Amino acid sequence: MSTPQPRSGPQRKADSLDLLRRDAIDVWVATASVEDATPWPHLVPVSLAWLDDDRAAIAIQARSRTARDLRAQPAARLAVGPTRDVVMIEAVAEEEHDVAEAPDDLVRQYLRQADWDPRAASGYVFFVLRPRRIQAWREADEIPGRALMRDGRWLVD
Amino acid sequence: MSTPQPRSGPQRKADSLDLLRRDAIDVWVATASVEDATPWPHLVPVSLAWLDDDRAAIAIQARSRTARDLRAQPAARLAVGPTRDVVMIEAVAEEEHDVAEAPDDLVRQYLRQADWDPRAASGYVFFVLRPRRIQAWREADEIPGRALMRDGRWLVD
Repeated sequence: MSTPQPRSGPQRKADSLDLLRRDAIDVWVATASVEDATPWPHLVPVSLAWLDDDRAAIAIQARSRTARDLRAQPAARLAVGPTRDVVMIEAVAEEEHDVAEAPDDLVRQYLRQADWDPRAASGYVFFVLRPRRIQAWREADEIPGRALMRDGRWLVD
Repeated sequence: MSTPQPRSGPQRKADSLDLLRRDAIDVWVATASVEDATPWPHLVPVSLAWLDDDRAAIAIQARSRTARDLRAQPAARLAVGPTRDVVMIEAVAEEEHDVAEAPDDLVRQYLRQADWDPRAASGYVFFVLRPRRIQAWREADEIPGRALMRDGRWLVD
């Protein structure tokens, strides 16, 4: 293991917010659907915008599997960062907006961080997701203390 | 976009196999469960071993959410690589073995590639997953032609 020491909670929170706010960063979005009582997982990488109110915004095709899953059941599991420096988020989709009719402030914040403009493509919508649980860890020695947010509230300053 | 040209199918297959066989590479594993008719996604990063017969092997805690999901419904969506150079795999879990009682050949192949030995920890099992569908792409210009395997058969040489 190359990590010198497990990071403190406040350090992990600061590092996580730096990562979540980084320009042109992507997020893995896992969703699920159910057909004939059988659950099916889905997973895609998309551009992330971390909003000023600590919610996540993504832009995806309105007809994509991810969009359909979120409409049917607004639960997502998000991962940001490489596999050995990860921020893992359980989130609830709260809002969906056609990109052409989205609130100006949402568009502004998305364009500030993402490296493309979904309004220039066709058929895209924004989903805004509120984190309920956030964990951050690098290697196995950081599994203890990985919880940074629970029930939507930060556990560390 | 920095990609000079979309890669050919054979090039993507060769690149994908190089990535899947790389030492100490991790895989994102998305699974799903259903409770009271509501689907829930799960997602974790774990070490990957790509077996000689083009199946994937992972070692996870026997009581983890991922293991429980795979036992209830053996469908997983796997992602390897960074978000802008990704190999995306739909796979079916075919085998589960306690690490202490796993076939020698599986253990040998896992240890050849992964950078840790799950037999040294407690409570781990191997799952062996067979890919049904494989896609590979870097940026948006590589979305066309991303299908490399369908119904368990390679589409390109």
